[in-house]
Amino acid sequence: MARSWVNSAERIGADLHLDLSESSGVSGASGPGGRRAALTRGLREAVRDGRLAPGTRLPPYRSLAADLGIARNTVADAYAELVAEGWLTARQGSGTRVAERAEPLRRAERVPRKAPPRARGPRHDLRQGTPDASAFPRAAWLASYRRALQQAPNEVFGPGDPAGRIELREALTEYLARARGVRTEPGRIVICSGFAHALRLLFSQEGGGVLRGPLAMEAYGLGFHRELLAAAGVRTVPLPLDEDGARVDRLARERAVLLTPAHQFPTGGPLHPERRAAVIDWARARGGVVLEDDYDGEFRYDRKPVGAVQGLDPERVIFIGSVSKSLSPAVRLGWMVLPERFVGDVLAAKGEREAWASVLDQLSLADFIVSGAYDRHVRRMRQRYRSRRDRLVSALAAHAPDIEVTGVAAGLHAVLRLPPGSERSVVKAATWQGIALEGLAEFRHPEAAEPGMPVRDGIVVGYATPSEHAYGAALEALCGVLPPGP
Amino acid sequence: MARSWVNSAERIGADLHLDLSESSGVSGASGPGGRRAALTRGLREAVRDGRLAPGTRLPPYRSLAADLGIARNTVADAYAELVAEGWLTARQGSGTRVAERAEPLRRAERVPRKAPPRARGPRHDLRQGTPDASAFPRAAWLASYRRALQQAPNEVFGPGDPAGRIELREALTEYLARARGVRTEPGRIVICSGFAHALRLLFSQEGGGVLRGPLAMEAYGLGFHRELLAAAGVRTVPLPLDEDGARVDRLARERAVLLTPAHQFPTGGPLHPERRAAVIDWARARGGVVLEDDYDGEFRYDRKPVGAVQGLDPERVIFIGSVSKSLSPAVRLGWMVLPERFVGDVLAAKGEREAWASVLDQLSLADFIVSGAYDRHVRRMRQRYRSRRDRLVSALAAHAPDIEVTGVAAGLHAVLRLPPGSERSVVKAATWQGIALEGLAEFRHPEAAEPGMPVRDGIVVGYATPSEHAYGAALEALCGVLPPGP
Repeated sequence: MARSWVNSAERIGADLHLDLSESSGVSGASGPGGRRAALTRGLREAVRDGRLAPGTRLPPYRSLAADLGIARNTVADAYAELVAEGWLTARQGSGTRVAERAEPLRRAERVPRKAPPRARGPRHDLRQGTPDASAFPRAAWLASYRRALQQAPNEVFGPGDPAGRIELREALTEYLARARGVRTEPGRIVICSGFAHALRLLFSQEGGGVLRGPLAMEAYGLGFHRELLAAAGVRTVPLPLDEDGARVDRLARERAVLLTPAHQFPTGGPLHPERRAAVIDWARARGGVVLEDDYDGEFRYDRKPVGAVQGLDPERVIFIGSVSKSLSPAVRLGWMVLPERFVGDVLAAKGEREAWASVLDQLSLADFIVSGAYDRHVRRMRQRYRSRRDRLVSALAAHAPDIEVTGVAAGLHAVLRLPPGSERSVVKAATWQGIALEGLAEFRHPEAAEPGMPVRDGIVVGYATPSEHAYGAALEALCGVLPPGP
Repeated sequence: MARSWVNSAERIGADLHLDLSESSGVSGASGPGGRRAALTRGLREAVRDGRLAPGTRLPPYRSLAADLGIARNTVADAYAELVAEGWLTARQGSGTRVAERAEPLRRAERVPRKAPPRARGPRHDLRQGTPDASAFPRAAWLASYRRALQQAPNEVFGPGDPAGRIELREALTEYLARARGVRTEPGRIVICSGFAHALRLLFSQEGGGVLRGPLAMEAYGLGFHRELLAAAGVRTVPLPLDEDGARVDRLARERAVLLTPAHQFPTGGPLHPERRAAVIDWARARGGVVLEDDYDGEFRYDRKPVGAVQGLDPERVIFIGSVSKSLSPAVRLGWMVLPERFVGDVLAAKGEREAWASVLDQLSLADFIVSGAYDRHVRRMRQRYRSRRDRLVSALAAHAPDIEVTGVAAGLHAVLRLPPGSERSVVKAATWQGIALEGLAEFRHPEAAEPGMPVRDGIVVGYATPSEHAYGAALEALCGVLPPGP
């Protein structure tokens, strides 16, 4: 039953574990004794198992011998035997390596290799929610990362403050004030890994349950958020939408309301100024909390950008943002701007140490903002997305003049209104033509089909997702599947 | 009630929001009309609120005028007025900026600035759990990050596969086989942001509950893990420990067991080979699952490193590791090596897209491993920690020869056994002397005081935490608070 593992802590070559047991325990196999035989068997097993991959360089005799406390010749003999058997190769100047032809894993142990969960991409990707992946500012981000890493004090590499790095919270305080009209200070900001993480921190009962339901939400929104809340046991109540945004006058005994005031997701309008004031009045009168999802606040194309509702009353609004639309979802960073009374509970929900958001990325983002690179990137992307929006609107005007386009004053997507009853067939036709997009039905709250909440037909067109060169063809394909005029 | 926001999307200068309302809505203030007056008032408010920080450069007249659709002179007049009032400064060649003396936030709105949750550090930090933060391989990590960023295909910056980047899962498959004796393939690895995240993915009911309790745990372990499991509604049952590690023969109807087989945390011994086989036998006979917490598997100092239990039966063991001890907790990356039947459920618990682990850090770590930098770093740190361990043992032999030291064959900490009843007073004395360390009581399962589970007295000394130059003084201080011999 004795089992021993040997580690080659040699200077050259990789760390290596060998099973040098006389009998290999669980599997029940055994073999003749002797150090050389055990080493030979152990190495052979490691190659056969795939633990030693083809091409891997083995430690020099000397190092392995020292580690095992055996003679150098014993190692040399074992290597020679395996070279003779074809498991290893020895070449002048490149040491002893695992042979390229060695079978990587025993067949019986191989798991059937599944296709990755992501299916093959569609020909034209017009799904909402993703910025143009080809536009990531690699050079500027790398410059920020380098500066951040070089200037970081040593404590950065120890356990992290669950609030997030102070450098980032300071940069965000200034940036959000300037660009989004948010009034806060670094002590009220908590860094997280994105919007879903923020929702979990606020509502997860396992995290302590900072907020409780029922939670009012816009009748159209992300199904993923509703599911996450349902899993946390939070009841959600749909608020009807009209041309002025969510009907916040319908708010009653809910404890909180989740809104997308700058650009209703996905239907697209801003919340009317009177409703902005009204939701604050509701929160004050009822002790309610407003959750402001500022998912694409940076991207407005008209001359009257909409500041954060948070600025109206920082004690009633939790403002949540992230870099997922403005920079990339590959950088897993978001932020919550909190009323003072929630800061302690949110930090407690997050844990004693930073267990989520990469601390190095936090420092890099802080530099990226302070150096002005973030502003430059947002401005560049705003121009690019505006031009795509314009191309979408022109294409529709030319080829489908009866289709009403809404929500185009901002963001990375538009909604094309369709004649009642036609949504499903348009989405189907699009799928047939290799166009990925979603119908409004995808976003409808399951309880939103009641009287006073008219069902709308439409498709959501994400115009940021394709790369610049693929966009024209995607537009053309889209026009091809839209219903002809009346 | 009308509220408008103006955005200066000018080429030079920062993005800027100004409240140009005639009446400012919620706050009730109002003022005389006129565009120039409104602009002046809006800018003044922004500076007074702190939304425009001292030193911020304002947009050129031309840009702001174009954005607002007003005359350039109107902007010039407003700027001049505010310069006259002292809110702004204008200097040749550097444009118009917010004056340095402008008060950043109105007093009434300031939140009392709280001390950050992290208290001021102790004089000597001998707490377990953190690698030497001064030893982070900045240059090598940056080189990997640069290569990863430069070579990344564009799709990297779009939505991520929740399993994690394939490059990292491939690198880990090879590395864990070689260095830890883990047998797996990339399709069975799921990347996460650390051990706690892995536990949540497995046990959170809100995440779907991949595994259920009761869960057996070693009688001594991290309180944080017990609390996390309790919050998820998982009952935990302590397993007694003896000189051979956890008493896995006590396992009965539990559905899973969480072990630290390579180096029991915190008491320090490896799980005896017979028990390694026995726990696999239990899992096979009962359909149980073994969770293997390989928190410091890389750091063994004797010649017989302990491979992963996972290698004995990849279908019964979930192997969990992270870079928190081997590299830094600032890089929020960990991995789960799963039996095939759990892969789908864990991915479902994680969500449709990567919402947690930084995708760029994942690529960087893949490069760091494949390039050999990870091996080099681990080897360098192993030597450093081994020498610290040796210094600790020598210091104790010289100054407190009656203290038994355990768990020194591996890891970043040791346990100093103390005479029964003396733990609390030693920890207290240490605190008085500015030494941060923890007693074994901190780690004891609350139900572990039953018959057959003897309470042990001891302190856990983390010898990796201090920087190299601070270690000698910390050791000296430690020896000063230990009880004199009999």
